[in-house]
Amino acid sequence: MATKKVLLISGSAVMKELPDLSSYAEVYSLDQLSQPALDSILGSVDCMLVGVLWPKVLNREALARMNHLRFIQLGFAGANHVPFQNLPPGVTVCSNAGAFSTGVGEYTWALVLAASKRITRFDSALRKSENSPDFFSKTLRGVTILQGKSLGIVGYGGIGRRVALYGRAFGMEILAFSRHAQTEPVTKIFQGREGLLQMLRVSDVVVVSIALTNKTKGLIGAQELSAMKPNAIVVNIARSEILDEEALYEHMVANPGFTYATDVWHEVSGVDARSSEFSFLELDNFIGTPHVSGPSEMATGEPIRLAVDNLLRYLKGESPGNVVDASEYT
Amino acid sequence: MATKKVLLISGSAVMKELPDLSSYAEVYSLDQLSQPALDSILGSVDCMLVGVLWPKVLNREALARMNHLRFIQLGFAGANHVPFQNLPPGVTVCSNAGAFSTGVGEYTWALVLAASKRITRFDSALRKSENSPDFFSKTLRGVTILQGKSLGIVGYGGIGRRVALYGRAFGMEILAFSRHAQTEPVTKIFQGREGLLQMLRVSDVVVVSIALTNKTKGLIGAQELSAMKPNAIVVNIARSEILDEEALYEHMVANPGFTYATDVWHEVSGVDARSSEFSFLELDNFIGTPHVSGPSEMATGEPIRLAVDNLLRYLKGESPGNVVDASEYT
Repeated sequence: MATKKVLLISGSAVMKELPDLSSYAEVYSLDQLSQPALDSILGSVDCMLVGVLWPKVLNREALARMNHLRFIQLGFAGANHVPFQNLPPGVTVCSNAGAFSTGVGEYTWALVLAASKRITRFDSALRKSENSPDFFSKTLRGVTILQGKSLGIVGYGGIGRRVALYGRAFGMEILAFSRHAQTEPVTKIFQGREGLLQMLRVSDVVVVSIALTNKTKGLIGAQELSAMKPNAIVVNIARSEILDEEALYEHMVANPGFTYATDVWHEVSGVDARSSEFSFLELDNFIGTPHVSGPSEMATGEPIRLAVDNLLRYLKGESPGNVVDASEYT
Repeated sequence: MATKKVLLISGSAVMKELPDLSSYAEVYSLDQLSQPALDSILGSVDCMLVGVLWPKVLNREALARMNHLRFIQLGFAGANHVPFQNLPPGVTVCSNAGAFSTGVGEYTWALVLAASKRITRFDSALRKSENSPDFFSKTLRGVTILQGKSLGIVGYGGIGRRVALYGRAFGMEILAFSRHAQTEPVTKIFQGREGLLQMLRVSDVVVVSIALTNKTKGLIGAQELSAMKPNAIVVNIARSEILDEEALYEHMVANPGFTYATDVWHEVSGVDARSSEFSFLELDNFIGTPHVSGPSEMATGEPIRLAVDNLLRYLKGESPGNVVDASEYT
């Protein structure tokens, strides 16, 4: 019988009821290892389960010593936190794409509706007794009925498809920007930069649900924003850096009828900043929540169950899914 | 050829592009009549189109003189503002039930999702820099995933059915409290007081979309509230008086995990108060908007088109729909 593979797990705090993997691997939890203990196993680690963000202790120096590392399974759908440039050659990285369709999809629709119906604006105005007839009639005119409108989905993966399902139930026309050919019923797939601009021109609501890679960073900048309808609603559930932050802020100030709702924030030093050099939180046409859509779904345990299922495929010698193309991140 | 009927229209401000009714009736707009002119036609008015709330000028004295009045078409879905006790005998009143399914249905789901995902809470906390790890983790635990949960709909008319459609798209089990037999696919219809309590006991989200009549006023009081799950979400899109206000306030203070989201308010002197002797607006588990769901749909013109269609049935001698049972209001 072959020697068991060594599996290193990080972010175990998010993992309730992790199944017993000891028949497949020798399992170590990074959170419970002293530095000397970690040092002693680094060279024998074969695979990893990274529950949340990449652990800082596995820096360039540590990774240089992980010369047996072959496989990394992520708990997150996004892989942009992985230090691809420091990984030993030949490591397969698998994301957890698709595992967040339900909770994050629902959360996305909550932001779409909060923006369309001006829910945060009305609730906050009532609490501040800001309830003049002028405010009332002006904000009332900003309430949008979704039925019959166009929904443009930037990135048509698990979350994008779930959002399309909700959009169809609300009687919207579904458009999608995707590099993949059409595999689910949508009105039209748009591809390439010109396709993106075409889709943005006709969309009443735009949902950003695309992976952050070196191809999508800054995908939506000044030109894309100005292509949109002046009263468009943009919901970002993916990563903040897909939009150019300065162009976005200027567009929002110049177009008070435009709304940006986001659960994701520009990062500072690798963590969500929840603030910005631009005063988004002072704008009436901004809705922000502190990156809770993923964590609230993680709390159900389901995403980690799916990640472990994929890890088990590797451990059993089967082909895992969701293999990340590292060239998109380096 | 018979003499044309006299039609009196009120609330014409909400009516864009009213079709030409002059081939069916002699049309007067209440907003454009002087008091002497109104006095001179009151006795000959045969039918009315009441665009918004019942016009105050048509008080008990005026109504006593409207002895030719036979038919009233309402622009609103609710009839609780009509002074039934002052109407001449034999007047048929038709509501505009069903005309608000789209806009109000969508608005209802916006409140369901804002409550489930704590959107107003997170947005307002960020704006107030109230973003401690403790607030974050506590509020995060309050985020609910709807898929697989139970949706109890109190009043299964046009809006209730639309809400059921959205609930099904979100993978929820649909329960409905309705006096009518089952006519659309729902998991179960509940009837009578014991049925209502049964439904409330198992519902994770409760939507109140029932007409306010003398049978439904105070339908949900202390006993019904205490039957609910402690972390239930109640969305009221109908009329505030369907809930007992004091019992509701006490229940919310005692159960911080319970959420009440409403677009409708208890009335003071016949108008929405948008405030209360109880400090709902100071509660974290309250979401309030200033009765905008109906008006924002009215602004599309569609509800008035449907009301005019029904009025035309009367004018052409056909049978109008949505006839109100006056005994439920007197």
